[in-house]
Amino acid sequence: MNERVPKVVIVGAGFGGLAAAKRLAGKAVDVTLVDRRNHHLFQPLLYQVATAALSPADIAAPIRSIFADAPNVRVLLDEVTGIDAGSHQILLDRTGPLDFDWLILSTGARHSYFGHDHWAKHAPGLKSIEDALEIRRRVLMALELAETESNVWRRRQLLTFVVIGGGPTGVEMAGAIAELARRSVSRDFRSITPRCSRVVLVEAGDRVLPGFPPQLSAAAEQALRDLGVEILVNTPVSEIEDDLVIAGQERIAADTVVWAAGVQASPAARWLGAEHDKQGRIFVERDLRVPHHERIFAIGDTANVPGMDGKALPAIAPVAKQQGRCVADQILGRCSTPFTYRSFGNLATIGRSKAVIDWGRHQQSGFIAWLIWSFAHIWFLIGFRSRIAVGVNWLWNYLTYQRSARLITGEAVKSKSESISRQAA
Amino acid sequence: MNERVPKVVIVGAGFGGLAAAKRLAGKAVDVTLVDRRNHHLFQPLLYQVATAALSPADIAAPIRSIFADAPNVRVLLDEVTGIDAGSHQILLDRTGPLDFDWLILSTGARHSYFGHDHWAKHAPGLKSIEDALEIRRRVLMALELAETESNVWRRRQLLTFVVIGGGPTGVEMAGAIAELARRSVSRDFRSITPRCSRVVLVEAGDRVLPGFPPQLSAAAEQALRDLGVEILVNTPVSEIEDDLVIAGQERIAADTVVWAAGVQASPAARWLGAEHDKQGRIFVERDLRVPHHERIFAIGDTANVPGMDGKALPAIAPVAKQQGRCVADQILGRCSTPFTYRSFGNLATIGRSKAVIDWGRHQQSGFIAWLIWSFAHIWFLIGFRSRIAVGVNWLWNYLTYQRSARLITGEAVKSKSESISRQAA
Repeated sequence: MNERVPKVVIVGAGFGGLAAAKRLAGKAVDVTLVDRRNHHLFQPLLYQVATAALSPADIAAPIRSIFADAPNVRVLLDEVTGIDAGSHQILLDRTGPLDFDWLILSTGARHSYFGHDHWAKHAPGLKSIEDALEIRRRVLMALELAETESNVWRRRQLLTFVVIGGGPTGVEMAGAIAELARRSVSRDFRSITPRCSRVVLVEAGDRVLPGFPPQLSAAAEQALRDLGVEILVNTPVSEIEDDLVIAGQERIAADTVVWAAGVQASPAARWLGAEHDKQGRIFVERDLRVPHHERIFAIGDTANVPGMDGKALPAIAPVAKQQGRCVADQILGRCSTPFTYRSFGNLATIGRSKAVIDWGRHQQSGFIAWLIWSFAHIWFLIGFRSRIAVGVNWLWNYLTYQRSARLITGEAVKSKSESISRQAA
Repeated sequence: MNERVPKVVIVGAGFGGLAAAKRLAGKAVDVTLVDRRNHHLFQPLLYQVATAALSPADIAAPIRSIFADAPNVRVLLDEVTGIDAGSHQILLDRTGPLDFDWLILSTGARHSYFGHDHWAKHAPGLKSIEDALEIRRRVLMALELAETESNVWRRRQLLTFVVIGGGPTGVEMAGAIAELARRSVSRDFRSITPRCSRVVLVEAGDRVLPGFPPQLSAAAEQALRDLGVEILVNTPVSEIEDDLVIAGQERIAADTVVWAAGVQASPAARWLGAEHDKQGRIFVERDLRVPHHERIFAIGDTANVPGMDGKALPAIAPVAKQQGRCVADQILGRCSTPFTYRSFGNLATIGRSKAVIDWGRHQQSGFIAWLIWSFAHIWFLIGFRSRIAVGVNWLWNYLTYQRSARLITGEAVKSKSESISRQAA
């Protein structure tokens, strides 16, 4: 009997892969969900880990736990190295090849430095828990070093934080860093004050949140300025060195630089030799199939799917989730219509009490938008416990302006502090 | 006026240093609290981070936040490299030397491999957050690798967990690992079952919890056996290699080994040329002063202080806290009597519902002891928020048998998994 059950392999347990696997759980299919990490990450809140408001476990859930009660879903911790489409197999790094009847590629994206890979070590991006902890470590360490720095010029450099890229992630990071570096310091530190800290958001285009209507960009810019963020638009970054960002005509001396400017899809297109856009996303059919592969789908950040306006749908969780459910339904024989995205609004948040929402026909900004944003994010967090934990933390942060996860950890703590102090000496 | 205020320098923000600084906060002294980490760590619950029940931020609080409202306490992130007692200065790694009128050394201890330093990489100890995350990563990764391992011998090795040292930390670790590796697997994993996992607690002496009365050792051993832990007493470890522990006559093939056998005081005795015991603890005067240094105190794990029975007081939080308050009182001119330790009971816990408590005159074990242990630990956690977060997590874990922080993170994830799989291949 087992032989007649189709084998579905899902690569990647992000929003898309997880939604597909959930839809297939308990059905007459044999599902294997492969991910190189053991946890699903709620990426929209990752910037809160990077800015010490939440702990990693608050926004991540072990994939196995999610499917503990679904005996037809097997979770495999491994990394895909290639696809042998002819023999219907995916190739894995650690275990042997895996047969599939249906394959769903939801392998996501990582940040891209547009060919400047040497920028990576000066300006970490924000995709994984390790990225978030590294950024948290750098931000908190810069404040600590500034507290004891007597050289005024050097202290200014330690207290300058540059975020590159004015999309939702960049806007959220800049707002959260400004709150952390300008609010928290006021009581906890003795030598540095809010005035000392400078947070700069650099965007190459002519406004922040380019995917939103212009009036929301303006609202976001105002909210950021209220938090003390400097905004540089029409300012492409031409070089990032140790402690220096060259943006337009400006040379910004900054110890802490965060990259939120570009992403690149995983190499799924290369595995299949499929046609892709310049961000590496596969041009899929209208039913999300990879062209020339009847039984391989690509979804989420791995796929380029045109929306109503002809532009590719944005790389956000709701798109990936709807696509995951759509391909699961196709595998179950339920759905044969082309995929259409139903938007329930596009959100971005700025600091602790402002957000912008694009509902399509109308827009919203300010505190009410922030409340909606908060409830939506707590609601969509995987797992009941995470919702409680995040809710408690947020309420606490909101009432006290405190950040609960202000820990400097990691083996690199010491070496970084040493190299900085020697340089300064 | 400022010149007449005495300068108190406290090195180390563990339980002792923190208690001293809290007692001195708001008084007519100028306090500098130096620590190489930015957080105070609630070490008694560190084993719960190592076994994925709690997040690091649940048991750690930024030192600065604790003293945000105490303007006379300055917090300095730096590492002490030595003491110049003649000129009343401590020497720091990053910033310049620091003058003191009074010096409190509460520098704690780290684990010691009794001269076998090469054991460290095979058998990490449990002192810092990094240690705990490393142990968590190894335990969770071993389960993941076992799930896909087809070689029976190799799988058994992956599912064997050895804890070396039968003191409170070892007992707590063994119990928690047994729960994690034998309970969680039952629903989340498809190939491995509780029967596969083997947890071995190795103790060189003739019983676990040697610091407790024999009947509590017996209760603890029974509780551990109920959880499925094998106990080897009178079994000194003679060698630890990659994936192998030689304990007494046994050769135990195990991927995951945890060291809980020995600690060594920080080099404070060496800085002062003071007499110390073989664990490096300074033999202090009855008022906790370092001999020949009228204005230097050593407390907590840094000091060897005889108790009522003539043996050194145990390295536990209540001892350090009472000593911290005692030296602070002496500096404030309040207390001149010799230090005496008032014991409110000595506790250790085994798994999710058992504990042992030594009240001195009588003893307690079982579920009631565990409830007392739980409330005591939540109560003594620094900060209101941590209490809520830990309370919520514990209640959740207790009701569901789930572990909320089951994340495999860290750059080392991949290399370890690769090296293991290659070895196995």
